[in-house]
Amino acid sequence: MIVAMHETATEEQIDAVIDVIVESGLDVHRTTGATQTILAGVGPATGLDLTKFELLPGVLSVHRITAAYKLAGRAFRPQGSVIEFSNGVKIGGEQVAVIAGPCAIENREQIFEIAKCVKAAGAGFLRGGAFKPRSSPYAFQGLGIPGLELMHEAAQANGLLTVSEVMEIAQIEAMLPFVDCFQVGARNMQNFNLLRELGQVRKPILLKRGIAATIEELLLSSEYILSGGNYDVILCERGIRTYETATRNTMDIAAIPVIHKLSHLPIVGDPSHGTGRRDMVPAMAKAAVAAGADGILIEIHPNADKAASDGAQTLYLDQFEKLMSEMRVIATAVGRTL
Amino acid sequence: MIVAMHETATEEQIDAVIDVIVESGLDVHRTTGATQTILAGVGPATGLDLTKFELLPGVLSVHRITAAYKLAGRAFRPQGSVIEFSNGVKIGGEQVAVIAGPCAIENREQIFEIAKCVKAAGAGFLRGGAFKPRSSPYAFQGLGIPGLELMHEAAQANGLLTVSEVMEIAQIEAMLPFVDCFQVGARNMQNFNLLRELGQVRKPILLKRGIAATIEELLLSSEYILSGGNYDVILCERGIRTYETATRNTMDIAAIPVIHKLSHLPIVGDPSHGTGRRDMVPAMAKAAVAAGADGILIEIHPNADKAASDGAQTLYLDQFEKLMSEMRVIATAVGRTL
Amino acid sequence: MIVAMHETATEEQIDAVIDVIVESGLDVHRTTGATQTILAGVGPATGLDLTKFELLPGVLSVHRITAAYKLAGRAFRPQGSVIEFSNGVKIGGEQVAVIAGPCAIENREQIFEIAKCVKAAGAGFLRGGAFKPRSSPYAFQGLGIPGLELMHEAAQANGLLTVSEVMEIAQIEAMLPFVDCFQVGARNMQNFNLLRELGQVRKPILLKRGIAATIEELLLSSEYILSGGNYDVILCERGIRTYETATRNTMDIAAIPVIHKLSHLPIVGDPSHGTGRRDMVPAMAKAAVAAGADGILIEIHPNADKAASDGAQTLYLDQFEKLMSEMRVIATAVGRTL
Amino acid sequence: MIVAMHETATEEQIDAVIDVIVESGLDVHRTTGATQTILAGVGPATGLDLTKFELLPGVLSVHRITAAYKLAGRAFRPQGSVIEFSNGVKIGGEQVAVIAGPCAIENREQIFEIAKCVKAAGAGFLRGGAFKPRSSPYAFQGLGIPGLELMHEAAQANGLLTVSEVMEIAQIEAMLPFVDCFQVGARNMQNFNLLRELGQVRKPILLKRGIAATIEELLLSSEYILSGGNYDVILCERGIRTYETATRNTMDIAAIPVIHKLSHLPIVGDPSHGTGRRDMVPAMAKAAVAAGADGILIEIHPNADKAASDGAQTLYLDQFEKLMSEMRVIATAVGRTL
Repeated sequence: MIVAMHETATEEQIDAVIDVIVESGLDVHRTTGATQTILAGVGPATGLDLTKFELLPGVLSVHRITAAYKLAGRAFRPQGSVIEFSNGVKIGGEQVAVIAGPCAIENREQIFEIAKCVKAAGAGFLRGGAFKPRSSPYAFQGLGIPGLELMHEAAQANGLLTVSEVMEIAQIEAMLPFVDCFQVGARNMQNFNLLRELGQVRKPILLKRGIAATIEELLLSSEYILSGGNYDVILCERGIRTYETATRNTMDIAAIPVIHKLSHLPIVGDPSHGTGRRDMVPAMAKAAVAAGADGILIEIHPNADKAASDGAQTLYLDQFEKLMSEMRVIATAVGRTL
Repeated sequence: MIVAMHETATEEQIDAVIDVIVESGLDVHRTTGATQTILAGVGPATGLDLTKFELLPGVLSVHRITAAYKLAGRAFRPQGSVIEFSNGVKIGGEQVAVIAGPCAIENREQIFEIAKCVKAAGAGFLRGGAFKPRSSPYAFQGLGIPGLELMHEAAQANGLLTVSEVMEIAQIEAMLPFVDCFQVGARNMQNFNLLRELGQVRKPILLKRGIAATIEELLLSSEYILSGGNYDVILCERGIRTYETATRNTMDIAAIPVIHKLSHLPIVGDPSHGTGRRDMVPAMAKAAVAAGADGILIEIHPNADKAASDGAQTLYLDQFEKLMSEMRVIATAVGRTL
Repeated sequence: MIVAMHETATEEQIDAVIDVIVESGLDVHRTTGATQTILAGVGPATGLDLTKFELLPGVLSVHRITAAYKLAGRAFRPQGSVIEFSNGVKIGGEQVAVIAGPCAIENREQIFEIAKCVKAAGAGFLRGGAFKPRSSPYAFQGLGIPGLELMHEAAQANGLLTVSEVMEIAQIEAMLPFVDCFQVGARNMQNFNLLRELGQVRKPILLKRGIAATIEELLLSSEYILSGGNYDVILCERGIRTYETATRNTMDIAAIPVIHKLSHLPIVGDPSHGTGRRDMVPAMAKAAVAAGADGILIEIHPNADKAASDGAQTLYLDQFEKLMSEMRVIATAVGRTL
Repeated sequence: MIVAMHETATEEQIDAVIDVIVESGLDVHRTTGATQTILAGVGPATGLDLTKFELLPGVLSVHRITAAYKLAGRAFRPQGSVIEFSNGVKIGGEQVAVIAGPCAIENREQIFEIAKCVKAAGAGFLRGGAFKPRSSPYAFQGLGIPGLELMHEAAQANGLLTVSEVMEIAQIEAMLPFVDCFQVGARNMQNFNLLRELGQVRKPILLKRGIAATIEELLLSSEYILSGGNYDVILCERGIRTYETATRNTMDIAAIPVIHKLSHLPIVGDPSHGTGRRDMVPAMAKAAVAAGADGILIEIHPNADKAASDGAQTLYLDQFEKLMSEMRVIATAVGRTL
């Protein structure tokens, strides 16, 4: 931590700041310039609220100089993390993973038809929601565990892995037999109790960025899972909220290379939530692959317009097949497979 | 719902859109202008995803013309709601409520000292956090139920009501004996399962706006609680995330008059989270009262700089007492008491 | 400037960074911690692009430790600036200034009726736009200099001062005889050529914050005027762009106390542009006064709904008179006059 | 325009609204539902401020149903616009254009070295700034017209076209002999006087999106140029301001497919300003091409770290050459050339 003092700070004020830094368990190195004094607090500043230093008399500004996260940092695994699933499929390696399926699992016929298409198109992961808390209390809310059973069966029949969102700690146990990867939704990105619990699970976690979360906060949230001993975390960029309304969210494609620089964790892109519009999904899926995404999450449905939830951002199956071919060409162009 | 067709839309495209509207359970009224056709879908559009209409061929734009919420709307109770507590104290009436206390309950001495100060300054509510999931996994995480017992005791001894944040459904039951009002934090504003459960509780709920939530989404979240039969909902503006970093959040003071126009629910302001800086709290507390807030939420601590959490935004007790007098003058100036 | 090196930075990388800092004309103080090296670049860093240091190998983060502005900083005039006009009226002193008038000057009758009302209500400044570049090329574009002549005459007849927006350098000369204060609009906040030119003028400048400008950028823009020798700059908060659409902009009331802390310049609030809605103007005007604003800018019109521009955010004259009384009570409540 | 009335609106209120719509020059079609009345104002609503209808008694909401722009709309030229330059080079066709050069022209040697590299790498356009108003008044401000002469000479020697930013109307005339395409910077996107003047010029205009501008506002700004008779407008996405600080701006890649849907104008991407960081430029350049950009704008400099301005986002020449090959592969993958 660095504390820059005002040019007008008195020696008493400087001493008082030094005292507070020392009380916080840090060593202090002082640089006295011609016009300004700078205090460097050296030591573990994790968990320290820096704003309180800003309010001390004579202080101009305070800066964190160590990353707030440790285990998620690139330095922890400079070569990058590759998450390996039970069937040998990997996320974070040379192959770009594709995770596709409906927003909500609706019935056996729907999920089997989709699973077959996902497999045929060459993707490795089937996703589907079983718990669908919607922003309107009057909308469809999901099939629950029976839905997951259906998805699991459909995945097994097609040699696919399953991904589904966990909403609460209480659901983890019941979901375990049916999912190969737990998804944490954007709204739960800072549900720290849930994250901590998922740190105890021994299955990969797909952690979505909150719509108002910075990249640093996403990494800090991943730290909750990592610090519990579960190192299989996959991050997901799915759009952030900005003033632009032409798309539902603004997909922050730059988060992909930024995360590759800051962290060793794989990062996948979700153009369905990232745009909220079916007609923008293909362009953004290709952009994400071109930017280096380790995977793509896509919502698909045989009858997208009639989907029980999020239909507007859902591709029809033939659109998905076409996009798979297009993404494959882009993947090759950036030296990967798909 | 209104669907405006492109000038170039064909009769077939118009018919197809009409079919989809009818399938959605709405009646269609058609207006054929010289250059453009407009379709009005009349009937209950709640829970309808309008984006799917936007994607139909020939459609220019789609507009919701009924509010997405009903019970929270001003029309439901044009005279406004006044929430009455067991001891007769009200929020939403002439008196501006003040809810003060530490971010986290730390120990008996701390909470009793604060309760005494809250009472002496003339405020009616003691607040304190017992569950403190922090953005860093390495920070203090709260005392839990024993903390609530301490706060309840301190409140009783001083004739105060208690407010504390509930993080999960599982905590509701255990918290019930100790809190007069459940607070739902910004991160849980769209935790719909929790909201639904709180709709079953018969104690008032203080619902904080999420840092990326629109006012409409806040009202829609309140609808979850109201539709469960709990009409005692108090909304809270506590700052939204913008690009400005001089303050931790940008406190959207205009949300106060906007909510008074759109809804019958009381709205309180939280300048502590709204600014994240102790030195900005008094100005923003006064601004909120001047704008018509029905209450003010303030974090206070006898030793703010050493507070276990959020110290930088916490007022010292003497600062709080001074602010109470200042707010009282403003309240009088806008025709209220405090 | 502080450069924090990665824990893994090599001695060669550290030396290379030191070289670049020295080349930039700064002295370097080095702090070698157990795990991390910190380099403090001491000297004038104004005008230095810090991002380039971030990209040097081994660098973790870079921090500016001196404010980017100097003349606008509080330290330059700790007691605060009071701008005095030719007739003795002041902005920045005990009295809260009120600047009122139509968005656009339309004709003699309109501006004289408004001037009379402004005077009668006790405000000191008449404002009106003569050049109205609108976001649609098909809308009314203003009367130009003849409009300013009308406003000047109306102001003279009522003992008022005039404020009007300057859009381009070429207009300054022609406007000089008619305005007592030049307004720089939000869109021109970073029109540095215009600002520089206004630094040569010897009349006060009202500088509005851009809709995407940080407070720091606003102060940096004021520095352009101040560094030309014109110290009579009044800042104006008029709402920033956020994701919230219930109001046209989000009025950042906290900018008022923040600017009072960071700068010596007076700051006024503009609730008309800040909200874009007539029905929200009174609450926000009062909030701004309660937060310590040195003045309020309000759009008024005898026939607001038919105003040539910005009618929706414009108060009727009787609404303005009522608001003046209300603001006066709030001003008294915060120890000022109005 | 559609006006949705409140369920509780009276017949008098409805009549009053009808009157105002008619006074605005529109025809009214009325739909009376079981619970709600809807009024459709049919006719040319361009230039109409809809907010004023929102404030009329009994009105629930108001919606624009015609696009605010006409000439920029896709319907105006469904096949898309291709801008052709004097030497036959096109933007908007099959070939993805590359526009590269330094942020600021510094001297003959620099611009000639860059021009040679741009040509060798296969790009068609040389760009460079001559007027550099910087956010700090203490930074380098550009060479002016002599700089443009140098760039023009360097371009001629290498068979390149030139692009440079115009800041003010007064510069147009002087720049004309030296530039093949005028760039309008983000800060001037709503400088309507400048846009109007450029509508009279007969050279292509590259119009950059403002950092707080919506896509609709960008199209509306282009309308100013188009309505003057200059149809050769190229739009540019260069990042918008959001709360994320890991990159200088958030590059809204989705703006590329959105603009292709809404407008016939070509759209290019600027990953240099879009990210503000050299290390993120290649990934974002490739993403933009994959998303369908008609061109890429890149800042390059032989000695990027020492560049007079914006060095941190500037590629070294060898990095640029490498990126050209990479983008070429992506262009091929999306069925284009580069």
